[in-house]
Amino acid sequence: MTALMSGLHEVLPANRVFTDPDAVAGYAHDEAAGAPYTLPAAVVRPTSTAEVAAVVAHCAAEGIPVVARGAGTGLSGGANAVAGSVVVSFEAMDRIVAIDRAERLARVQPGVVNDDLRAACAEHGLWYPPDPASSPWSTIGGNVSTNAGGPCCVKYGVTRDYVLGMEVVTGRGEVVRLGRRTAKGVAGYDLAGLMVGAEGTLGLITEVTVRLRGARAAERTVVGCFDDLPSAGRAVAEVVASGAQPSALELIDRFCLRAVDDWKRMGLSADGNVLLLARCDAPGVAGDDEAETVRAAFDAAGATWSERSTDQAEADALFAARRLVYPALARLGAVLTEDICVPRTAVTDVLARIEQIAGEHDVRIACIAHAGDGNLHPMVVVPPGDDEAGARGRAAFERVVDLAVDAGGTVTGEHGVGLLKMRGLARELSPAVLAMHRAIKNALDPAGILNPGKVFPAAG
Amino acid sequence: MTALMSGLHEVLPANRVFTDPDAVAGYAHDEAAGAPYTLPAAVVRPTSTAEVAAVVAHCAAEGIPVVARGAGTGLSGGANAVAGSVVVSFEAMDRIVAIDRAERLARVQPGVVNDDLRAACAEHGLWYPPDPASSPWSTIGGNVSTNAGGPCCVKYGVTRDYVLGMEVVTGRGEVVRLGRRTAKGVAGYDLAGLMVGAEGTLGLITEVTVRLRGARAAERTVVGCFDDLPSAGRAVAEVVASGAQPSALELIDRFCLRAVDDWKRMGLSADGNVLLLARCDAPGVAGDDEAETVRAAFDAAGATWSERSTDQAEADALFAARRLVYPALARLGAVLTEDICVPRTAVTDVLARIEQIAGEHDVRIACIAHAGDGNLHPMVVVPPGDDEAGARGRAAFERVVDLAVDAGGTVTGEHGVGLLKMRGLARELSPAVLAMHRAIKNALDPAGILNPGKVFPAAG
Repeated sequence: MTALMSGLHEVLPANRVFTDPDAVAGYAHDEAAGAPYTLPAAVVRPTSTAEVAAVVAHCAAEGIPVVARGAGTGLSGGANAVAGSVVVSFEAMDRIVAIDRAERLARVQPGVVNDDLRAACAEHGLWYPPDPASSPWSTIGGNVSTNAGGPCCVKYGVTRDYVLGMEVVTGRGEVVRLGRRTAKGVAGYDLAGLMVGAEGTLGLITEVTVRLRGARAAERTVVGCFDDLPSAGRAVAEVVASGAQPSALELIDRFCLRAVDDWKRMGLSADGNVLLLARCDAPGVAGDDEAETVRAAFDAAGATWSERSTDQAEADALFAARRLVYPALARLGAVLTEDICVPRTAVTDVLARIEQIAGEHDVRIACIAHAGDGNLHPMVVVPPGDDEAGARGRAAFERVVDLAVDAGGTVTGEHGVGLLKMRGLARELSPAVLAMHRAIKNALDPAGILNPGKVFPAAG
Repeated sequence: MTALMSGLHEVLPANRVFTDPDAVAGYAHDEAAGAPYTLPAAVVRPTSTAEVAAVVAHCAAEGIPVVARGAGTGLSGGANAVAGSVVVSFEAMDRIVAIDRAERLARVQPGVVNDDLRAACAEHGLWYPPDPASSPWSTIGGNVSTNAGGPCCVKYGVTRDYVLGMEVVTGRGEVVRLGRRTAKGVAGYDLAGLMVGAEGTLGLITEVTVRLRGARAAERTVVGCFDDLPSAGRAVAEVVASGAQPSALELIDRFCLRAVDDWKRMGLSADGNVLLLARCDAPGVAGDDEAETVRAAFDAAGATWSERSTDQAEADALFAARRLVYPALARLGAVLTEDICVPRTAVTDVLARIEQIAGEHDVRIACIAHAGDGNLHPMVVVPPGDDEAGARGRAAFERVVDLAVDAGGTVTGEHGVGLLKMRGLARELSPAVLAMHRAIKNALDPAGILNPGKVFPAAG
């Protein structure tokens, strides 16, 4: 510990290094319920790439674990501190370095909040699409490290699709520039892409260059109410089959609707058990046609009620309600949040199986979904203080993970593996693929100091 | 050689192994002018993943180089045989395994020709966008290995954006499945993405799962003629600034126009020195508006003539003419094809600098470009049999490579590094990034047998 402290104080100003237990406690874990963590040995708040490199070089030399941290909004434990670790918080590296309208790109430090980047881009008539529910708080560095998604990804893709290049501090403490700033490029291995979703295990991202789009056309909102999950699932399949390309296609089940109603009195659950929210942003008449196509698909699948919302305030309120689901459920207990992604055609079956699993384990599993992508967020809600229910909830959580793999899907669509999905990942990937992960990890982080013990087990 | 042959005959039927010099000569190189190659020791034509794995395992054990080959249409020497190598030709693995309309994906063997996949998708009302000029001949395996682009990539992205997952034979001869079949996923490192553009140096791709789009709306074609490259470059900038998102934005310079005219008598060079071809596929009225926006941008930049083509046959002929440029130039001599990609705002300056370089080296450099992406294909045309001109051409080629790096661009936008861009790559990437390449190569191909000596130098 003395070597750690004296080393850190050599490379950083004293006011950038924290070791007091009260000061470091707020940096010990992210928002994943039930993921293990310890207090870190120290928290550092670097202000420059050079400071990050100096910290990592020191830690590599001393064999000290390094855990990168954005806003701590992660849901898998990826940012949780491990024993004896230094947490590198990027909150002081929050500068938008440049927004280039002619090139349609932005250079940002990792600590920039997603919504802040989006707002800054909007001032230039530009748009950064990835829109995780955490966008008011989560940072670009964290978004890149988990390959964050969001509702608009059904049409516009995930964070990976917007990352052109980055500056990274490697496990050796070297500063490298990966990727490019041009629209296309295939000069060597896609190392920038390799860092996306690597959850801080291969390098610390100190700057990101993202691709931007022009401001998009206005969105129309289409709402559909359904009696049950199968009919909502059919509606999603009908939309896909219709050829329409909605810019959002979200599902909210009855548990979620009621939880929001109980809290906010929005009357969401008055008209049905399952709500589908779609948006269409094709320009002009084409967008109107598309919205009508989506509504017809809802009706064909047996919607009890459907409407193209003509009231923008009402439409915005519905999407705001979707963002309220998580806090509304958190009022009821600990929430174990799933993030499975399954083939679109399997969504209905998987939702039915999740209801079965909930019954078999006597737990409540509420569900929201980026339904158009097959990305489901079943949330196991465990009453506070009930240890037995907690154990049943964890068992149900793992059954849902297995269900995703068995359905030809993946254990994580957009939240990352962190700690909570490690068992599932080892089931999803073959031993040979896990060995490739270890070989690459060892190649880029030979000291094994970067976020150790996360994502995949270090030994086979 | 005896160990090689007896080993190959143990794992493959005799009619799948060729060693006769006449038989293997057609597999010794791709279409890159001036890239070195030797006759391979053997060519194998496996029919299954198991056969590929057996070949690689044998070669790994014996230390025999393995060079993967699609249709051999590459322009960088990536598929060129090296001394003592076994070339694995995927021409017999050309099956479209499945096209799934509901999931909007296809599973294909690597030897499927790009246009064949596109035609098969069209029968299902689906679309595989990447459209390299080689699409009538080039294969998906090669497209993935070079991250191929094409005209429509300015709106729809490159091959990487469509690769969901793949089956790969690693350098150890193991068969692994990488990536996923779901719309989203972040379960572990993006190893499928790492294989895209790796030019066969990290594994042999034996099956690819690609994302598809729904059939797109009809395209409008807008043509603009310009007196000189600077005004055409300004037109491209005007289009980008307008917010229009054309589905193609191609530039053809006077050398190319004249070469096609001299061959095909199309009259392309009658109206101007530089042609811009744009397409707009936004649906309905929005597409009409977009086409008009593009035309206005052309005019604002000083087009001598512009037109929205109302004659589909004429429009198709113009894009066909663009594809005739390469064979038209090849009639005039050896063509050293560049593939640099520069920031969009640098296009005009870079085009002017290329003209200077041509003058300084007394060579002809013709130019086509995916102008909307900043992806330029300057082509140095060297008269046949003129060794001195050949040397001047190679010198000019390397100056253009350096120019791309100096302009903040990359040495290859969509053709790959192969052999021809190795010097440029080492200039573009820092020594630390090259070391990361070597570490990853060593991690996944410890015997160093997969396409050795390509992309980056094996030692620093």
